[in-house]
Order: sequence, then structure tokens, then C-alpha cells
Amino acid sequence: MAIYETLESLGISLPPVTAPVAAFMPWVRSGDLLYISGHIAKKDGTPWRGQLGVSLTTEEGKQAARAVAIDLMGTLHAASGDLGRVRQIVKLMVLVNSSPNFVEQHLVANGASELFQQVFGEHGAHARSAFGVAQVPFGSCVEIDLVARLVEDGQAA
Amino acid sequence: MAIYETLESLGISLPPVTAPVAAFMPWVRSGDLLYISGHIAKKDGTPWRGQLGVSLTTEEGKQAARAVAIDLMGTLHAASGDLGRVRQIVKLMVLVNSSPNFVEQHLVANGASELFQQVFGEHGAHARSAFGVAQVPFGSCVEIDLVARLVEDGQAA
Amino acid sequence: MAIYETLESLGISLPPVTAPVAAFMPWVRSGDLLYISGHIAKKDGTPWRGQLGVSLTTEEGKQAARAVAIDLMGTLHAASGDLGRVRQIVKLMVLVNSSPNFVEQHLVANGASELFQQVFGEHGAHARSAFGVAQVPFGSCVEIDLVARLVEDGQAA
Repeated sequence: MAIYETLESLGISLPPVTAPVAAFMPWVRSGDLLYISGHIAKKDGTPWRGQLGVSLTTEEGKQAARAVAIDLMGTLHAASGDLGRVRQIVKLMVLVNSSPNFVEQHLVANGASELFQQVFGEHGAHARSAFGVAQVPFGSCVEIDLVARLVEDGQAA
Repeated sequence: MAIYETLESLGISLPPVTAPVAAFMPWVRSGDLLYISGHIAKKDGTPWRGQLGVSLTTEEGKQAARAVAIDLMGTLHAASGDLGRVRQIVKLMVLVNSSPNFVEQHLVANGASELFQQVFGEHGAHARSAFGVAQVPFGSCVEIDLVARLVEDGQAA
Repeated sequence: MAIYETLESLGISLPPVTAPVAAFMPWVRSGDLLYISGHIAKKDGTPWRGQLGVSLTTEEGKQAARAVAIDLMGTLHAASGDLGRVRQIVKLMVLVNSSPNFVEQHLVANGASELFQQVFGEHGAHARSAFGVAQVPFGSCVEIDLVARLVEDGQAA
């Protein structure tokens, strides 16, 4: 699979899905759409805490967004059975834990967007909204959810 | 209907749909998906005001989220004609009116998630994003929107 | 086309699509759904900066939301090829750059909602969530994304 070879060449190993800490599912499939729950940024397995504009730089936020994208791919792998069945990454919502004066949420979000395009190619080109939120669960610095479209059953990617 | 019996056993009576205070619809159906507009928390018919981390405890926030879920079910009932036609609660977006130091949005959101699962069973298991926002219309403490999937016309649930 | 005549009667000329400043697409089509990326408010071609409750009035915010709606229609025109192929504006997410004490996000959002209904008539009636965020990229005062449903290929609107 080209996608898994790309991940390997980037030195990325996908994590297993983390069980949600609350009363919801990591993903729900509806027809050929996959709705993936918000994933928070983690570092060494614990929440990557901090706020952009206070305790983290834009570059650190971008790395955190990239880390979330890797976790999202782990969940996509579990949900799809095979990342080659992802027809399109449709939409990302990127929440950046921001002080009232931090205005580079788009640069932070690029950490995730660029990795999706690198790994999925044209299937990774997505619509996106990125904005600054007052807080994120556990004080994490970034949270991202997404909608992806799967190849329909019985069809090739 | 098992769902309505569950609601009755919980002592929950569904409210009628509240007409939006602005230029939009309480819901829109697109194919077999229902997009439900953001509903704000209310108490005794007026906005349940307050901010988590300032004037409300996590437990109060959780109760507010549960109250929103009841209102959302009222809208789902009106939109579907019969809650038994809800095939899946697909995705919740839970906005918690948060001070910059409140980090338990996931616990607040559980007030809604747990009720959906209690009432709809496996059909209530949903994807979710929960995060802290700077404010909510009318100063309400919680706002939730959702996407649900209906049973297709002519099919049984 | 009635829609383009309505736009002309309102003195609105649609802008060309602005290339995203980051690694994502202005829109993605998935089946008959169009997911349009978050568009920030602009004035004279540059970000319409400011925060509601600090430097902008509710009426100014409403005008900014209307400006975003015009830009969104420009993107919808490019994505659909013909606004007459928009079967429904399904859902708006309206992010209002808000101080912790501003609670009229719904009135700001009406600037967009009212224009969609004016231009698209019943096809413009949409579900909506509006809330206050801590910041928006480039310090813009409003950001809006949307989901729209297109007429299926081979069908009339």
C-alpha cells in the first residue's frame, strides 16, 4: 500500500485508537462518511498542555497539530480497515487553544493539513476551518476533528 | 415505542420546538441526514447563564448539557416525526462557555452524551467534539448542535 | 437565472475565489454535499480586524458577517458552476471573535443568514450554530463555514 509506505518513509507509526475518556465513540460511520471525534494533542502519551500566545510558539503549535493528525490517521486506519479505502479527507475543524491576541491559527493548523496531503496526496486535499478557542479538554493546546469519505463497498479506491 | 417509554421512565417530557430567535431553521434535512441547529442551555425557559470556571461548577455544567440534550430530542422528535426513525446520533459538537483556566469540557459534555446513549441505546452512540468557547448567545453556559441519520424512507429502524 | 438577478438587484457582485493562504482547499465536494472552508471577514480585500465587545459594535459585526456571506457565495458559484444548482444551504457555523462579555453572536450571524435567505429563498433556509471564539486567523472579527447540498447531476433544481 502506497499510503503505508509513505508513512514508513516519514518515520511515522500509527498509534492504536485511544478509548475515549468519556461517553462517546472515536468515530461513527454514516453511509460512506466517517465522522471522527475531536482528538486532542498529546506528547509522550499525555495531553500536550499549553496555550498559543502564552506558553507555546506557533511552531510548537504546528508540531502539536501534526501529532494530532498522526493520531487521527490511527483512528482512520481502525475505522476504515485500510487507509487505501479513504477516498477523501473532506473537512478538518482545527481548534487552537488561544490567548485573545494570538492570530496565527491557520499556521498552526497547517501542521495537520500538510501531513494529510503528504500522506494521502490528492485524496488528502480537504476543506478546513481553523480558529482560536478559549480552552480544550485537559488543557491541551490543539484539538482536531474530521469528516472523511470512504470508497463505497465493492469499489476500488 | 421503546424510546418514548425510556423517556417516560426517566421522567423526561419533550418540549415543543422553540422557534429560532434569528433567521435560521431549527433543523434541515439533507438526504437521510438531519442537521440540528445549535441549541443553548435553558433553565425554566430562559437562558441558563454562566461560565464554567467562573460562576458554574462542572456538575452544574453537566446538568445544563443534559438539559440541552432534552431540547435537542424535542427537535429531533419534531424533525423525524418519530424518534424510532433515528438510525444514529452521528455527531455532537458541544460548546462550553469557559474561562481560560477551565479544562473539563469533556465532563460537561457527558451530561448530553450519557443521556443520548441512555435513551437511544446503540443508536445513540456518537462521535463528538467538546471544547471551550469565549461566549455563547445570551450568555448561556452550553450550546450543542448535532447531526443525526434517519432510517431511509420505507425501511424499518 | 433568478439568483443572479437577485444579487444584481442587491448591488452585489461576487468575488472570485481567494486561494487559501494555507494547505487546504476552498471547498470539497462529497457526493451531493459541498463542504466550504471557513471564510474570514474582509474589508477592502484585507482582514476585517476587531473583536466584538471590544472594538466593534453588533451592527458592524453583522455587516462583517454579510460580507463573509458574499465571499461564500463567490466560492459556492465557483464550486457549483451555477448557483441555481444549490438545492439547499444546509448548515452554517458562524464564529464571532468575542470578548468574554459579548453575548449577541446570534445577531451578528443574522447578517449572513438573512442574506442567504434573501438570495436563495427557501433554498437558503439553513440550520446554524453561532458562538463566540477567542480569536480568528489574522485577527478577523468573523469566520463562517458551511455545508450546502447540490442538485444531483441530471436533475433540475
